[in-house]
Amino acid sequence: MKNPNLNNIEIDHLYHLGLDSSQDLNAMFGDVKFVCMMGSSLRIKDFAEKVSSSLGVEIPEEGIQPIGKTERCSLYKVGPVICVSHGMGAPSILIFLHELSKLIEYARASDVRFIRIGTSGALGLTPGTVVVSEGVLNGKLEPIFEQIGLGKTLRYETGIHLPLAEGLLQSRGDFEAVLGLTLGTDDFYEGQGRMDGALLPPYSEEESMNFLKLAHEKGVRNIEMESTAFASFCRRANISAAIVCATFINRLNGDQVTTTAEEQMKFSSYADELVLSYLRRTLLPLPLISNL
Amino acid sequence: MKNPNLNNIEIDHLYHLGLDSSQDLNAMFGDVKFVCMMGSSLRIKDFAEKVSSSLGVEIPEEGIQPIGKTERCSLYKVGPVICVSHGMGAPSILIFLHELSKLIEYARASDVRFIRIGTSGALGLTPGTVVVSEGVLNGKLEPIFEQIGLGKTLRYETGIHLPLAEGLLQSRGDFEAVLGLTLGTDDFYEGQGRMDGALLPPYSEEESMNFLKLAHEKGVRNIEMESTAFASFCRRANISAAIVCATFINRLNGDQVTTTAEEQMKFSSYADELVLSYLRRTLLPLPLISNL
Repeated sequence: MKNPNLNNIEIDHLYHLGLDSSQDLNAMFGDVKFVCMMGSSLRIKDFAEKVSSSLGVEIPEEGIQPIGKTERCSLYKVGPVICVSHGMGAPSILIFLHELSKLIEYARASDVRFIRIGTSGALGLTPGTVVVSEGVLNGKLEPIFEQIGLGKTLRYETGIHLPLAEGLLQSRGDFEAVLGLTLGTDDFYEGQGRMDGALLPPYSEEESMNFLKLAHEKGVRNIEMESTAFASFCRRANISAAIVCATFINRLNGDQVTTTAEEQMKFSSYADELVLSYLRRTLLPLPLISNL
Repeated sequence: MKNPNLNNIEIDHLYHLGLDSSQDLNAMFGDVKFVCMMGSSLRIKDFAEKVSSSLGVEIPEEGIQPIGKTERCSLYKVGPVICVSHGMGAPSILIFLHELSKLIEYARASDVRFIRIGTSGALGLTPGTVVVSEGVLNGKLEPIFEQIGLGKTLRYETGIHLPLAEGLLQSRGDFEAVLGLTLGTDDFYEGQGRMDGALLPPYSEEESMNFLKLAHEKGVRNIEMESTAFASFCRRANISAAIVCATFINRLNGDQVTTTAEEQMKFSSYADELVLSYLRRTLLPLPLISNL
């Protein structure tokens, strides 16, 4: 195990997943090659169904069923792909990264790649453009995830697996997709310089716009809330990881998410399609070429 | 509005709730007196049903229905009580605090109190004991919530409404309940000194136990992941707020949550009962005393 302390635990309770190491995790998850993560438990169910039809994996007549408990997340397994929701924000996704990483180790699954598929605000892009992260910055515009452990500030470098990111970008369909830096913040309102939270923010509109422009100049193309934890955890755990986000709004034009539910569904589906196309290319056997 | 910028917005999209200010929010929420928040969307539905039977508020035959979209949270209204899920971690609850606070203002609801009902690890208490927070410390054991805004670290004091906390404690039933400090961390594993994450933690077991003991000496009685954001936001917004948590584990004895699902349900129900009893005392008319 990556954490030798785990060798001393008789049964490891993966508390938030509702699974434990006394189960035959190798039989359940030993063939996993991809873990696809999304914030919402509703969207991940929809994505799991898309994976099933995309890879030709049959699902039960009564519909796809979650594995483990559904109080904190929803986890589906479709062939070699785990599809799991992670909630919003770095602390929430970090819980699932720890427990999924342990799950993969207990299952003795090998060469597993993690892909986060998210929604985000864009910087300087037309809403609907898909952003594949080539790097991740925190709210201070550093490529670092800061967390507090035993009263001390710990700083971990963020890291993206560039070949995976580039492979994903090559799978784009009939929509815009770009590589860019992703800004991961710990708050949707003041953390992202919004003026429209419930409280008067401790900055002016001009200061906010200057900050967003500075981020844009540094190469930031989208803003969300999980990339720092995701990219630093996967780097520490030596997991190949990539982030693919839909964009709903260009933050250089305003704060409010005014795209309609229909547009949001369409824009989200672009990010889904890009990942599904990559999964197909990677997981399905090449078509046989006859008469050669 | 507490944030004057909101007066310039024609329609404010409360994006994560799936509601907006063009709706007749006064008709929908004008009578609200309490906002009860919980992490899990499954548990909040169960709690909303308990509020309904506890206050004698009828629910539709087809069952209680969520209001707004359910992609990011589940929100129910039972008489004068909003019951809403907030996910896990400070960034997640902060989103809902901003949007619920705006909702309350648009609805012109008055004297609304916020109560978070959570699950937590205890320090030095028997699992099952309910902790009502008398104050909130962050991972550095300071009564502060730190967040990053426009690249700068912002520090906001945490604050609990003590009369509300004491009123809640007085509503305890046939189970243990205590006042104590709550430690709010940004991570379940390394943030809370656990040895059983996926990766080798950057501290020893002895260092971890020393930190937990130090926290206990300072008066910390439980550890969770939302209290700093909750208590600092409500203090800034001048909202009377309290936190009531069930405890599943005594962290001075270990890291793993080994209580059974049945015990967890029982221990959670104690926290629910304490709040329900307070809601009844506060919201129901006094019984008429005849012959006086």
